[in-house]
Amino acid sequence: MRDFSRDHRWLSINTATLRGAGTLDTIIEACVRHGIRAISPWRDQVHAIGLERTTELVRGLTLELSGYCRGGMFPALDPAGRRAALDDNRRAVDEAKQLEATCLVLVVGGLPGALGGTPQSKDLFAARADVRDGIAATLEYARSVGMPLAIEPLHPMYCADRACVNTLAQALDLCDELDRSAGGALGVVVDAYHVWWDPLLKSQIERAGDKRLLAFHICDWLVPTTDLLTDRGMMGDGVIDLPLMRSWMEDAGYRGFHEVEILSSNNWWRRDPDEVLTTCRVRHQTAC
Amino acid sequence: MRDFSRDHRWLSINTATLRGAGTLDTIIEACVRHGIRAISPWRDQVHAIGLERTTELVRGLTLELSGYCRGGMFPALDPAGRRAALDDNRRAVDEAKQLEATCLVLVVGGLPGALGGTPQSKDLFAARADVRDGIAATLEYARSVGMPLAIEPLHPMYCADRACVNTLAQALDLCDELDRSAGGALGVVVDAYHVWWDPLLKSQIERAGDKRLLAFHICDWLVPTTDLLTDRGMMGDGVIDLPLMRSWMEDAGYRGFHEVEILSSNNWWRRDPDEVLTTCRVRHQTAC
Repeated sequence: MRDFSRDHRWLSINTATLRGAGTLDTIIEACVRHGIRAISPWRDQVHAIGLERTTELVRGLTLELSGYCRGGMFPALDPAGRRAALDDNRRAVDEAKQLEATCLVLVVGGLPGALGGTPQSKDLFAARADVRDGIAATLEYARSVGMPLAIEPLHPMYCADRACVNTLAQALDLCDELDRSAGGALGVVVDAYHVWWDPLLKSQIERAGDKRLLAFHICDWLVPTTDLLTDRGMMGDGVIDLPLMRSWMEDAGYRGFHEVEILSSNNWWRRDPDEVLTTCRVRHQTAC
Repeated sequence: MRDFSRDHRWLSINTATLRGAGTLDTIIEACVRHGIRAISPWRDQVHAIGLERTTELVRGLTLELSGYCRGGMFPALDPAGRRAALDDNRRAVDEAKQLEATCLVLVVGGLPGALGGTPQSKDLFAARADVRDGIAATLEYARSVGMPLAIEPLHPMYCADRACVNTLAQALDLCDELDRSAGGALGVVVDAYHVWWDPLLKSQIERAGDKRLLAFHICDWLVPTTDLLTDRGMMGDGVIDLPLMRSWMEDAGYRGFHEVEILSSNNWWRRDPDEVLTTCRVRHQTAC
């Protein structure tokens, strides 16, 4: 395995980790102050300061983007809804391309209306069909501009409202169906938080191989976990065997970034961003 | 499918659904008042009023037990811990036998110490090995007294603290490994709440068949879900397509009870037990 004990060349910060720290320019400044070489920004944070301003900052500071968060959210009740989702994904591809991101992360969506709290369907098959069709259409465009798409299987507890793709096997089945050539245009995000429990994880990471493994997100599963969305832990504070998972990723050929994504409304989002980043750096070296 | 629209012959109440209603004798009286024919009691509730008293009540009222909750919790850090778990499971088998339960439900356990809030290991492989060995040892005894064991795969969000068996496929793999004859000594609980998200659910229910399908638990997945353990919904209030899942169960040969198990600290546990049971009966007829 790569030796991370003395540097953080492969550490990336997903900017959701610093949601408590202000706007994206402030977050980027903090990352640069800590010698961070790569980030993965969220679209809402980019839009808040503008795509042009973000592009200037990223280029001026020679930051890399380990990903761009996020496209997806394909399922809808009617053709107009599906069309709107495709249009939005096309814009997300363009933004990712302008920012020269490694990939556009796809959080594929769940049951229509559920994210807003009022699910309008119980039809998981329909939602999954919308996801397949939405990825297929988006892939056609993304391939034409050279932006890889990375399907992120989310933990099954998000099946209703955020993503009805919930295992790495399911995501890879989609990849194999929609991108037979497996040349890097379509792949997956392995986020430790979402997949650590999966008894098939090791074999599916092997199956994915380096062409499909487009990103690796890290944080930790806390015991107890008090909130389904925003009680994620700093690496080392939970029960995920991150070094073991990393060894599987590297055995499969992955050589990219370790992207720290911690949604933590009651802990890390409330702390000083310098403390958060210092801790990320230390834990990246000692707990991953 | 069986017509449940006019009777509740196959409705069973898991007594955890009435945790707010007092001791088990009170809960049983309430069930009988509503013409319920079957229950599935929890061991702590049985122990609180005594096994003999419970046996008297169940026999005197000719109640059936759709299951007995629960054995399992096998993983431990050392041989003494594993031995204690086996001893406890043997007692659970004896209690289930005395109560003439359909099966002993196994919630297999997660990482040692995690249920108490202080996980002492991150080794999921070791935990799963303890589970396999624990079921094997318990099965030998359970088979000798004629008590079927039913492995309940729990939702992956309980992997750390409650059960590291998290999919129906994983549970069935254990069944096939430990009980090749598939004569009914070892099978599974399909709990809608735990497995509804699984893209392989339909095929795995087919794979299980009637010999492995020992129990069917129902409730609903609420959107949003505000607590990982005790925010489960009444059938019809969430997003699970229960009639579809029931059709898969019956196509596979299942003809047993529909056991309502709703852990709901902020809603159903606070309501009058008669209202809870009336609602269970109505929803069993209209939403399942």
